Amino acid sequence: MSQTSETSETTATVDLREPYLPPEELEALQAWWRATNYLSVGQIYLMGNPLLREPLAPEHTKPRLLGHWGTTPGLNFIQAHCNRVILQRDLEMMYVMGPGHGGPGPVAAAWVDGTYSEVYPDVPQDEAGMRRLFTQFSFPGGIPSHVAPETPGSIHEGGELGYALSHAFGAAFDNPDLVVTCVVGDGEAETGALATSWHSNKFLDPVHDGAVLPVLHLNGYKIAGPTVLARIPAEELHAMLRGNGWEPYEVAGSDPDAMHHAMARTMDRCLDEIADIQSRARTSGRDGRPRWPMIVLRSPKGWTGPKSVDGKPIEDHWRSHQVPFSDARSDDGHRRVLEEWLRSYRPEELFDDDGAPVELVRRLSPAGERRMSATPHANGGILRRSLRLPDWRDYCVDVPSPGRSTAGATAVLGEFLRDVMAKDLEKAPPERAFRVFAPDENNSNRLQAILEVTGRAWQEEVLDTDTGLAPDGRVMEILSEHTCQGWLEGYLLTGRHGFFSCYEAFIHIVDSMVNQHAKWLKTTNEIEWRRPIASLNYLLTSHVWRQDHNGFSHQDPGFIDHVVNKKAEVVRVYLPPDANTLLSVADHCLRSRQYINVIVAGKQPSPQYLDREAAEVHATNGIGIWRWASTDEGVEPDVVLACAGDVPTMEALAAADLLRGWFPDLRLRFVNVVDLMRLQSDREHPHGLSDAGFDSLFTTDKPVIFNYHGYPWLIHRLTYRRANHDNIHVRGYIEEGTTTTPFDMAVVNHIDRFHVAMDVIERVPRLQAVGAHAREELYARLVEHKRYTRTHGEDMPEVRGWVWGGEEP
Amino acid sequence: MSQTSETSETTATVDLREPYLPPEELEALQAWWRATNYLSVGQIYLMGNPLLREPLAPEHTKPRLLGHWGTTPGLNFIQAHCNRVILQRDLEMMYVMGPGHGGPGPVAAAWVDGTYSEVYPDVPQDEAGMRRLFTQFSFPGGIPSHVAPETPGSIHEGGELGYALSHAFGAAFDNPDLVVTCVVGDGEAETGALATSWHSNKFLDPVHDGAVLPVLHLNGYKIAGPTVLARIPAEELHAMLRGNGWEPYEVAGSDPDAMHHAMARTMDRCLDEIADIQSRARTSGRDGRPRWPMIVLRSPKGWTGPKSVDGKPIEDHWRSHQVPFSDARSDDGHRRVLEEWLRSYRPEELFDDDGAPVELVRRLSPAGERRMSATPHANGGILRRSLRLPDWRDYCVDVPSPGRSTAGATAVLGEFLRDVMAKDLEKAPPERAFRVFAPDENNSNRLQAILEVTGRAWQEEVLDTDTGLAPDGRVMEILSEHTCQGWLEGYLLTGRHGFFSCYEAFIHIVDSMVNQHAKWLKTTNEIEWRRPIASLNYLLTSHVWRQDHNGFSHQDPGFIDHVVNKKAEVVRVYLPPDANTLLSVADHCLRSRQYINVIVAGKQPSPQYLDREAAEVHATNGIGIWRWASTDEGVEPDVVLACAGDVPTMEALAAADLLRGWFPDLRLRFVNVVDLMRLQSDREHPHGLSDAGFDSLFTTDKPVIFNYHGYPWLIHRLTYRRANHDNIHVRGYIEEGTTTTPFDMAVVNHIDRFHVAMDVIERVPRLQAVGAHAREELYARLVEHKRYTRTHGEDMPEVRGWVWGGEEP
Repeated sequence: MSQTSETSETTATVDLREPYLPPEELEALQAWWRATNYLSVGQIYLMGNPLLREPLAPEHTKPRLLGHWGTTPGLNFIQAHCNRVILQRDLEMMYVMGPGHGGPGPVAAAWVDGTYSEVYPDVPQDEAGMRRLFTQFSFPGGIPSHVAPETPGSIHEGGELGYALSHAFGAAFDNPDLVVTCVVGDGEAETGALATSWHSNKFLDPVHDGAVLPVLHLNGYKIAGPTVLARIPAEELHAMLRGNGWEPYEVAGSDPDAMHHAMARTMDRCLDEIADIQSRARTSGRDGRPRWPMIVLRSPKGWTGPKSVDGKPIEDHWRSHQVPFSDARSDDGHRRVLEEWLRSYRPEELFDDDGAPVELVRRLSPAGERRMSATPHANGGILRRSLRLPDWRDYCVDVPSPGRSTAGATAVLGEFLRDVMAKDLEKAPPERAFRVFAPDENNSNRLQAILEVTGRAWQEEVLDTDTGLAPDGRVMEILSEHTCQGWLEGYLLTGRHGFFSCYEAFIHIVDSMVNQHAKWLKTTNEIEWRRPIASLNYLLTSHVWRQDHNGFSHQDPGFIDHVVNKKAEVVRVYLPPDANTLLSVADHCLRSRQYINVIVAGKQPSPQYLDREAAEVHATNGIGIWRWASTDEGVEPDVVLACAGDVPTMEALAAADLLRGWFPDLRLRFVNVVDLMRLQSDREHPHGLSDAGFDSLFTTDKPVIFNYHGYPWLIHRLTYRRANHDNIHVRGYIEEGTTTTPFDMAVVNHIDRFHVAMDVIERVPRLQAVGAHAREELYARLVEHKRYTRTHGEDMPEVRGWVWGGEEP
Repeated sequence: MSQTSETSETTATVDLREPYLPPEELEALQAWWRATNYLSVGQIYLMGNPLLREPLAPEHTKPRLLGHWGTTPGLNFIQAHCNRVILQRDLEMMYVMGPGHGGPGPVAAAWVDGTYSEVYPDVPQDEAGMRRLFTQFSFPGGIPSHVAPETPGSIHEGGELGYALSHAFGAAFDNPDLVVTCVVGDGEAETGALATSWHSNKFLDPVHDGAVLPVLHLNGYKIAGPTVLARIPAEELHAMLRGNGWEPYEVAGSDPDAMHHAMARTMDRCLDEIADIQSRARTSGRDGRPRWPMIVLRSPKGWTGPKSVDGKPIEDHWRSHQVPFSDARSDDGHRRVLEEWLRSYRPEELFDDDGAPVELVRRLSPAGERRMSATPHANGGILRRSLRLPDWRDYCVDVPSPGRSTAGATAVLGEFLRDVMAKDLEKAPPERAFRVFAPDENNSNRLQAILEVTGRAWQEEVLDTDTGLAPDGRVMEILSEHTCQGWLEGYLLTGRHGFFSCYEAFIHIVDSMVNQHAKWLKTTNEIEWRRPIASLNYLLTSHVWRQDHNGFSHQDPGFIDHVVNKKAEVVRVYLPPDANTLLSVADHCLRSRQYINVIVAGKQPSPQYLDREAAEVHATNGIGIWRWASTDEGVEPDVVLACAGDVPTMEALAAADLLRGWFPDLRLRFVNVVDLMRLQSDREHPHGLSDAGFDSLFTTDKPVIFNYHGYPWLIHRLTYRRANHDNIHVRGYIEEGTTTTPFDMAVVNHIDRFHVAMDVIERVPRLQAVGAHAREELYARLVEHKRYTRTHGEDMPEVRGWVWGGEEP
């Protein structure tokens, strides 16, 4: 932070000490800022005497002080200036606060604006409401200390840092009239996710998208030390931002009046530039990527708070990060500091006799949906319209007989998604509401059909040799899973739809972001005024079983395990075994709301099992017996062979095929699972099977061999309360692999047909005696497999050319 | 990539077309580069006829082509120039290749240097060895397609992208004589982790640390499209790099001779600057952060490969990313292209009659450990020395009686770590080998005692009001979990020791990095020449149960679940219940090798249970009956009350305390688990209890109430094969929480004493009849708790002041 109170700005031609604002505007800005700062401090410290109409007594203060003051006055300062430009320009603006731990700020603003009392009628704009506002903050049964789903006007939880800018861009896409003001804290700016998200400007179309106005807020300190960006030389910082494609304008200082003049001047300049960029692009056409403006705001951490307490610096120091001093209840000296601090905002000038904000304060509040706390963009469910989907059945591949033809499932899905996109493109922004996201993998994941109707978003130079790039492209590709996820979250949270395809192993990069989104969804389910948003849909392909070429580092099916730790109401996991089932599942996911849908499906040509009708039934049930692969017709089976995932399904079928050749009288029931949550109890998950339903499929006492896509123990976790659990034997990925052949990947993890067939023989009592020869034969084939692949470098023809029921007729 | 063959460099004063290298140096560079390129193409395509001594026939080519050509010639080019400067300056240099999917390159280099044949004697430097080298690549039973643990000279798996620079810095810390050349691909440069790791230069001490020389390799394309950094204007790129504190020198072009001259000149300039920076800092003292040099290398993707195939551009295009053309076996035309391509390197000039590299090629290979493929830094276990640890017993807190005094566990640990640091500081670099890492949380995690003996690493300006910053500080804090993790991994992989403290919820940010490190460890366990490295030690604190103040977004105990999916041999999870046990566990972890150790422990003042002796026994056993809390002395218990984690342990004890008051004849066995893996079977995990051992603690038929720190199903997963599993009832985090009180966090997830006591009453048959009154009382206290916290904003005194056995005597 600036060590001087002098206010400065980068542009040399303007004298910043020159007043910019008319006195009445300055007065309104000051009043609004004082009011929100007062209300912020009140939330952190007070539970009584909200208007300070009597001297502050111990019982007026909270016994347990929680909250973050340091960033809050800065958030309020910026919002005051947003309000000013919203009013003057009739702007549609929303506010993304990276330093969302400054929760008291936006809550204060929403209360001053009136929004808070509209959505929470028990917190009215009067003295009682103010007391409630103060008491509830960070209080049991009250509201969280951070910006949270409970905070009107927010799409951005103030928890984990790093995603403010990508959320802001997600909100701006396809909202040509929207300006998203996005505060980036200097702590957050050190995170990887934030550092690369500066590049989002290379993917924003000035014609069809809105604008993002970043405010890099350098208040100098993290929890216990200085921040990197606040301490590097200013010329380095500006070079870094320019190098990321931005034009930075700096506003620095601590004197409130001077800072208001400088900030107002700078906001005007930035919004003029934004308007100019947009109008040029929209009237004269695009002319390369524009250099968008941004603001660097240097202001003291804990600005307007106590300068020092107990001889230690507070304002402009990391000590103001959270609660600047504690013990206001039992320490009279501290309480005096608190009272002086609160009175320094002159609350008697800000609130009327009833405790409502006076006209001078309210003058800076925009009206209706122009209030940033009330913008429908921040409650995207209000704006969400269902996608117009083509009929997925029209894209189905022909499956004349199960397991005897092949197709690449994701390529088939790509054709469906292409037409989802095409239908969406029939609308003009801001009605366009569908994008796909991938970290450099759209084509690798075989979704290139989408590029027949749109391009990859790209604002940089395009060469003759390039293919599929377009400034208004809707395939969002940057080699940053974080940025893809952040864009998509921002897009969904503002009422739109999306689809994220990713290599299965590397989706773990966004594990923590998924946690936050799942928590957001869970909480919004409990908030009446929040409307449901579209689900976050993942297609995980290039999955563990077909990363034989990239090797061990690319083999990890654990994202499923990660997701199922979240609340059952918000997570769904699908493992469609073939193309038609994938289509049905994808269609369902694109129609759903408030979920995180994880679809795992392979991209390689694979056997197809279910025709259109069978796929629809199977996907709808989520689990089912495949009668054509079973030999237990009408009788209790000897064994249940279950599977989930395309490769484990193929291997289980091949095992069933082998077994019925050897043991024609074996009563084998073949069960396939698409919707993994069907395995759980209906008491644990809304999709769960009842115990009776589960038992009717898996029996209560017969051996079950379960060939599973991921880590085997997840199946145990999902079924451990089932009657037959002790008989369930699961095969799955046991963290073995390298660069090898596809079938060898199955073999080293024991999910291959030979191991599975041996498992069945071992576990069915009446096969144990007669199965010795078969087991020897299976073992011999495993040995033959090793020998063949190590000599020829590819899988033996027997497994490569497998079709259900042996040779093609 | 440059669209012209003209070679350019940023510095205007030098005419780059002017030759720089003497002819014999140029010749050696050319020969070494041609040799490694030839050997790289051979690995991707050939399995016979390695020296092309006969025309290329179908059977000489592999049936299944896997590998990445695009980046490989660039990696080889850079390594050639590294060799030149190593030889000329007798440098200690290592090589970190971000684009590690270019696996054939470093394998080729290691073979030319002789290292490969030294560590793999079955791949000698002759024709048979070359055939083996080619065949084994990406071949079943052979080696992975990427740079991997199998690759001599590497500490950096070529899998997930983003960690090259932070690994390189980790390697350079405390290695004052080492220069780490680090290639950053332009795909990788788009990731968040990489984008922020440019700032690592703010944490590198020119006096005690070595240097990192980044080479940003812009070959222009990712898998299927252009890269951002290769297409933005050069002045933006340079501004971005300067803004990140680097001085970039650009080498661009495609004509090999011109590029060799330019690269040699630039390498010399960079190494001169590095030497100058170091010598000034080391003789005249530090003078602010130096501006370290780096190289921007623009060269065609797939450089020296075919210009086009089937009319489509290959060189300088994304089509050269992987195998540039397939079907060399069955397509005669493609095979002709391949043969011409291979012959363009003139192998007959590069390898002698036996197939060994000729003297002209070998001239560029450094000797012995100066070879980058043979540097001991890249096989850190060779250099690893055990830490000199103080006796942890000297730091123990006094525990006169279990559960009747309090301490903050991590603050106690901080004192131990302080003295670990102090002992390490008695040594001079490069023998110094211990650092601690935290994303802005060292003090928040209560480890500030460490700052008594060292500072936070910081090369920027220091203000009067700052505390604890030092240019040679060994507390590594940047608000980027990725960078902390990457630094630490690089530090460990080069033979040193470290300790990472982090908020429990946000360690998920590095989930995917942990996957990669676990895979690295698992694989190196299987490679004879790789020596064991120090374990990666995590302290997860500010854990789920004490994130009552930050709220729901900060509450996630799922990292444990993530880690236990990895191979059992490489993961350990510890949940010490108190300070002394934490000390013993930490001591053990700091001595261990080849593990990922996850320690979860709270930072708040909490009851202490075990004195020095008891803690040692308990931590060593990892699980045990606490007799002082049990009432089943000498008899079979009615119930087992088990727990793991500090807060669940306190609540379980408080429940036991309540129960023995009400039911003096209840035979309750109290079991505490420190080492979570003890719960698993000894067939699944090396730390697992035998079935007999497990049964002796948990019985085979009595109810078990298990109060657990994390998601409850993990306990089921670990115990589902145990005899008594069906009687195990687990309480844990069920994804409920907000900003509230600590005790309320327990209540809403049902791990609190009242719920646990009710669980016991419900499940012990002989209590069901007599327990009605107690259950009513417990329920009343739950209601009272809600009422009290919602009125007073803090926990009721009864739970705040809890001590084992009621009031202090």
